Amino acid sequence: MPADPAPNAFYAQSGGVTAVINASAAGVINTAALFPEKIGQVYAGQNGILGALREELIDISRESEASIQGLMTTPSGAFGSCRYKLKGIDENRAEYERLIEVFKAHNIRYFFYNGGGDSADTCQKVSEIGERLGFPLQAIHVPKTIDNDLPFTDNCPGFGSVAKYVALSTREAAFDIASMCATSTKVFILEVMGRHAGWIAGAAGLASRSEAEAPHIILFPEIAFEEERFLAKVKETVEKFGFCVIVASEGTQTADGQLLSGSTSRDAFGHVQLGGLAPKLANIIKQAHGYKYHWAVADYLQRAARHIASQTDLEQAYSLGEAAVNLAMAGKNALMPTIVRVSDEPYEWKVGTAPLDEVANQEKMMPRSFFSDDGYGITEEARRYFQPLIMGEAYPNYQDGLPHYVTLDRHLAPKKLPPDNRW
Amino acid sequence: MPADPAPNAFYAQSGGVTAVINASAAGVINTAALFPEKIGQVYAGQNGILGALREELIDISRESEASIQGLMTTPSGAFGSCRYKLKGIDENRAEYERLIEVFKAHNIRYFFYNGGGDSADTCQKVSEIGERLGFPLQAIHVPKTIDNDLPFTDNCPGFGSVAKYVALSTREAAFDIASMCATSTKVFILEVMGRHAGWIAGAAGLASRSEAEAPHIILFPEIAFEEERFLAKVKETVEKFGFCVIVASEGTQTADGQLLSGSTSRDAFGHVQLGGLAPKLANIIKQAHGYKYHWAVADYLQRAARHIASQTDLEQAYSLGEAAVNLAMAGKNALMPTIVRVSDEPYEWKVGTAPLDEVANQEKMMPRSFFSDDGYGITEEARRYFQPLIMGEAYPNYQDGLPHYVTLDRHLAPKKLPPDNRW
Repeated sequence: MPADPAPNAFYAQSGGVTAVINASAAGVINTAALFPEKIGQVYAGQNGILGALREELIDISRESEASIQGLMTTPSGAFGSCRYKLKGIDENRAEYERLIEVFKAHNIRYFFYNGGGDSADTCQKVSEIGERLGFPLQAIHVPKTIDNDLPFTDNCPGFGSVAKYVALSTREAAFDIASMCATSTKVFILEVMGRHAGWIAGAAGLASRSEAEAPHIILFPEIAFEEERFLAKVKETVEKFGFCVIVASEGTQTADGQLLSGSTSRDAFGHVQLGGLAPKLANIIKQAHGYKYHWAVADYLQRAARHIASQTDLEQAYSLGEAAVNLAMAGKNALMPTIVRVSDEPYEWKVGTAPLDEVANQEKMMPRSFFSDDGYGITEEARRYFQPLIMGEAYPNYQDGLPHYVTLDRHLAPKKLPPDNRW
Repeated sequence: MPADPAPNAFYAQSGGVTAVINASAAGVINTAALFPEKIGQVYAGQNGILGALREELIDISRESEASIQGLMTTPSGAFGSCRYKLKGIDENRAEYERLIEVFKAHNIRYFFYNGGGDSADTCQKVSEIGERLGFPLQAIHVPKTIDNDLPFTDNCPGFGSVAKYVALSTREAAFDIASMCATSTKVFILEVMGRHAGWIAGAAGLASRSEAEAPHIILFPEIAFEEERFLAKVKETVEKFGFCVIVASEGTQTADGQLLSGSTSRDAFGHVQLGGLAPKLANIIKQAHGYKYHWAVADYLQRAARHIASQTDLEQAYSLGEAAVNLAMAGKNALMPTIVRVSDEPYEWKVGTAPLDEVANQEKMMPRSFFSDDGYGITEEARRYFQPLIMGEAYPNYQDGLPHYVTLDRHLAPKKLPPDNRW
């Protein structure tokens, strides 16, 4: 008499993707393979949780070995991610019931959800509803966010690589301007991500090792933007060093909470002209001081920059995927594996855990002690925090002069349920 | 009786800098050192030709060996560049006379000028005026421009690295959008440099190996922008592939020569809002189709990206610096060493020469045969041209997680002339 087949696992990617989220997927997949008696298949949701709602389950066993290995060096969400926040159980119970229906049909008892704060919340709810509907699941959240704003974990996978890209790009652009400023560009502005917390902009501070070195000014969402004080600092910097490099968080705002990038206007064709913080700042400076400027907006380039991913970040992303499976195998539920810093230098860290009901929907802001007195830079304490996160260059392979990134075949498992077009 | 000292050489960087212009400097410096009997010192102009006018001559012999080696892996202009176009000899003879005065005072008989089309013109004029004033110099132009628009040379040092960065960034951003497009961003626009010629945007086409792969649309300065046709192509692409990636040259313009980025407007504070092509395009698309979009403007990041410089580009930059000195040593004057392509695959090239009076002030546009029929992509012929230029990854060394770039000491040679404050 054959034994009951081992239950299956579901893995999905949620929210904005990163340079190393696929390394977490590899951690889940490779570790699950070590427990053939407890885990049957690993299915991945096509386009995140939507894949479960639509019963679009990618059969990972049908991907080639090379593709699975390639996850370690491929940015973005290889299985598709989604921006889709499940409502509360009481508001939309049908959604949760559908998830459980799909999981039941495919004998899925492990739920690994790879995302930020919203998805930690979803993960927690999936765990609860399974219990309530008599189909208990083990739900483990694998943290990921370039915003670095999850609580309990010292840092978040995905952040270290953005931090490295932003610090490196700041340094490179600064070298360019330094060589041009005698007769040309005096001010350069790099706009980076970070709507609510200044972690990414703060990491750019690593590019500077002295007052003279760029970035000379960092603008954080946490520090109210004061135009006069800012303009004075720009002028002082240009007069002292010949040029001024500014790194600005997209969430830079005034004391009354108005985003600097928020104001809109219409151009000659009647099109609404959407701000962009960097051109806005450039223009404020130009009006006041007349300096020639350049600006860059890194946007997706910063979070997709697998070509210069941090080795630390890559290892941590993998380890937390691995830890998620190990936690499930140890019978745990409704947890998130975390990164616990043991020491700054030499940098040591280990995996810890946090209970999901405490993680969900919290944002961790940069501590006040990380901002310099004038609010335009970072402190030594902040440097000690950021420095290890950007260490190591985890280069991908190149083919024809470009990084070789994998695209999965995405064979879907045969559907077992009648069509349901609600999602 | 001591022999007359060997005459000295002057080297200067001109115009917009690149990821590899310092490798050309290294080529000049290292090769000059092989001819101690014919070349005494190599002086570099601090901030380009201004360094000669101001008698601010950097004494390269006082830089450390490590710094000179570091030029190979440091982006930007290590000696300072400048945007300063010498006027015609008849309009401003004093400027040329001053140059000759400084060169005479420092026994400078070799003039190596590292720049684009404008500086080729300057180099030619310096050669002429030296002759006329009875102080003949050998003037050799070392080509450099990310714009890739110099005639006679198959490609220009500096271009290959930008091409690699832009193609790589396009691919990375495309992976990001592909994983988000089911529920989020549908359109991504990367704005790249190129005011008059579409070489840089064209190179982004290497990121795509099939119709489905990004970039789906490239906008070139050479192809008139037609809003309706463009919008139809965007829609068709999103409907077919789920998303659309656009790479746009900053010089994109309509048939009547109006730059798309050119129109200005005022925001709520009364500040003039300067365009930015990428947000303009994003807005046109949003108005027409309602697609969620993201956009990035690479600006200086693209030309300073030494961290992912092309090995081919680096080698060519060095070789043309080397060739310039060898030409001077062979008694040549008013020439520019060029890159001559011998074969596409395997890629082979050699150094040629072009007469400066034919190089100056010409722009080489992308040939019509490089544009696809609809003008939104590149042909196979273009691919064969671009492909070898991005080959190889010439990684710099890293320190504390960031590229280690050198900053020179810039010891100035003692002045020999009375102060002259005209420059």
